[in-house]
Amino acid sequence: MISVDMARARILAGLAPTPPETVALAEALGRVTAAPVRARLTQPPADVSAMDGYAIRGVDGAAGASLRVIGTAPAGHPFAGTVGPGQAVRLFTGSLVPDGADTVLLQEDARREGETVALLEAARPGKHIRRKGQDFAADEEILPAGRRLSPRDIGLAAAANHPWLVVHRSPRVAILATGDELALPGEPIPPGGIVSSNAHALAALVRSAGGAPTVLPTAGDDPAAIAAAADAAAGCDLFVTTGGASVGDHDLVQPALAARGLVVDFWRIAMRPGKPLMFGRIGAVPVLGLPGNPVSAMVCALLFLVPALARLGGLAETALPTRTARLGAPLRANDHRADFLRATLAVDAAGELVATAFAAQDSAMLKLLARSDGLILRPPHAPAAAAGALAEVLVLAAVGA
Amino acid sequence: MISVDMARARILAGLAPTPPETVALAEALGRVTAAPVRARLTQPPADVSAMDGYAIRGVDGAAGASLRVIGTAPAGHPFAGTVGPGQAVRLFTGSLVPDGADTVLLQEDARREGETVALLEAARPGKHIRRKGQDFAADEEILPAGRRLSPRDIGLAAAANHPWLVVHRSPRVAILATGDELALPGEPIPPGGIVSSNAHALAALVRSAGGAPTVLPTAGDDPAAIAAAADAAAGCDLFVTTGGASVGDHDLVQPALAARGLVVDFWRIAMRPGKPLMFGRIGAVPVLGLPGNPVSAMVCALLFLVPALARLGGLAETALPTRTARLGAPLRANDHRADFLRATLAVDAAGELVATAFAAQDSAMLKLLARSDGLILRPPHAPAAAAGALAEVLVLAAVGA
Repeated sequence: MISVDMARARILAGLAPTPPETVALAEALGRVTAAPVRARLTQPPADVSAMDGYAIRGVDGAAGASLRVIGTAPAGHPFAGTVGPGQAVRLFTGSLVPDGADTVLLQEDARREGETVALLEAARPGKHIRRKGQDFAADEEILPAGRRLSPRDIGLAAAANHPWLVVHRSPRVAILATGDELALPGEPIPPGGIVSSNAHALAALVRSAGGAPTVLPTAGDDPAAIAAAADAAAGCDLFVTTGGASVGDHDLVQPALAARGLVVDFWRIAMRPGKPLMFGRIGAVPVLGLPGNPVSAMVCALLFLVPALARLGGLAETALPTRTARLGAPLRANDHRADFLRATLAVDAAGELVATAFAAQDSAMLKLLARSDGLILRPPHAPAAAAGALAEVLVLAAVGA
Repeated sequence: MISVDMARARILAGLAPTPPETVALAEALGRVTAAPVRARLTQPPADVSAMDGYAIRGVDGAAGASLRVIGTAPAGHPFAGTVGPGQAVRLFTGSLVPDGADTVLLQEDARREGETVALLEAARPGKHIRRKGQDFAADEEILPAGRRLSPRDIGLAAAANHPWLVVHRSPRVAILATGDELALPGEPIPPGGIVSSNAHALAALVRSAGGAPTVLPTAGDDPAAIAAAADAAAGCDLFVTTGGASVGDHDLVQPALAARGLVVDFWRIAMRPGKPLMFGRIGAVPVLGLPGNPVSAMVCALLFLVPALARLGGLAETALPTRTARLGAPLRANDHRADFLRATLAVDAAGELVATAFAAQDSAMLKLLARSDGLILRPPHAPAAAAGALAEVLVLAAVGA
């Protein structure tokens, strides 16, 4: 058995980011930049007014002065002439500041009478002007490579004049659930059978993490069907199996995939839930074998599949975004396996995050997993911990789970 | 001018959740349940083994005992007979516990020899069995109405045998950017013009919040084009405009939409950035008029559009998920307008969240908005605050921004 951190490091070492593709700006939300994005223009393109008012020369801006209004320049309709001594041009937010002017007189500090404008207050030279290039300059890097694009990033890329963006292709993930006992939701359930939940939960997690899942038909405990799934997974960036990953009498995944050339890197991790986790490769396709138990499968997916998708998807950061929280209830000493306790999270009166583990940690309880807000990370041999002690927590919403 | 909280309350009061629709489980990620989800079966359906081992009678479980193996029952292949005195049935994780047996002998505590199994350790009566209904019982509510479905929820609904789910229809949001100065990314830019960023940033935010955006063609400063956009927005759940929401000489949105029957609820909020924010209604369609300034538009969208989408989408919770953080740099006293400072977030050595406002808060700087991790919420008339003081923060990632 190897440690969780070692297992994650070995998985990540076996993966490379997907190649780039070009997507429309409007489809780029949540995609990961494959190259730095550089501004295609300077913003603002010239000095512009930050307010509604009048463009004037600062030297003409004394309180009580009266200036002649020689034109109007709404945003998008620049004034073609020059502002000379004693002159003003009507401006609005976003209007270009005309040649000759260096100051914006605020509308509320002015009184307009026909073709003249009187200054009720002194104008402040140079104020209320957004300077050319204040936001960004042409060719400036505005977004780094390896960044998942937020709505704000989309806005920034648009402002920098990018109708298309170069992003990593979404990682293709084939997902196979195995086991004679499985029925798809709504299908006839065999005697002693259960409804298959792993494949669709994992597909949702893959989608949430930016991947493109393909759910393969469920394979019974049939080596030929499992091997056929490996053929269907060819060309994917990752092949995920669930169930049968151990080496018991009915754990058929490893032997069945061996017939397709599976090379196993490791297949046991010192963790709970989820000891039987396998990582290997069939030709060029990395294979991640998750446990069949639904809670174990999801916990292992959070710890290994989500970072794997981050690496495949080209994200600069693949570390799990854990936080520190106070324990809401005491914990017993841990054994030699890292433990990942399903927990609720709350914020106490002092504003601190409090994580309280469910009393029942049975790895088959999907209902409690769904009600969990986080996982408390308990290292191997962690001593007993009192309520109020600090612990490391993975916030499930932060990893799209 | 009205307060931010009052404005949000009035917007939410004017909105109702969209009607329900049926979607496939595989398409339900991120959708919001429109009714409680009840289990369609009991899970586990009967007592099942939690481990690989042997089903025996607890009274036969003394160390050193030898039992006759009368059958094998892999998961999905239940044993049809009854376990009698001195008998055992080979089981695997997930196998039904056969009639007559009440205990699972662990595989590692047993030594198999032909048709007999010897107990190396005493079996613990009743242990290693997952009881019928331990996860959930048929007809039990497993997910409440008004919940955004996570990958874990998808797994739970699958396990409870739901191939379809009833969710709120995604809110349809029409988005209109106005202004003669605007060009779409990649299109020819008019003299003194800029590239339109708001519509696509808002569309991305709408999508991120679970809505279905329609970006309308940009309208110049042309009342007829703006009014035509209102016609195109008919049948939407929300009509969002950006730019021209104030009432200056070139703020045409209100008068143009008045020709289509716009009834204005309010149009100014005591906040920065973003004072000119309008809310009203054209017939049955609510109208949210955002400022044209890109940073103001996005900040106002976070404060008003995101909660509006939560309400329209049927989420039980519409409050903004703010957190407490310590200030990384001092702040000056605030004036009468609520202020929303763009800030970076970090975690200090003590594990506490630290929010540091950018020195430049100009509302036209998209680059700094994209680099922000949060908004520091400064109430009206907030006194000066020292570094280390506590402040309320909206974490942008937490609202999909």
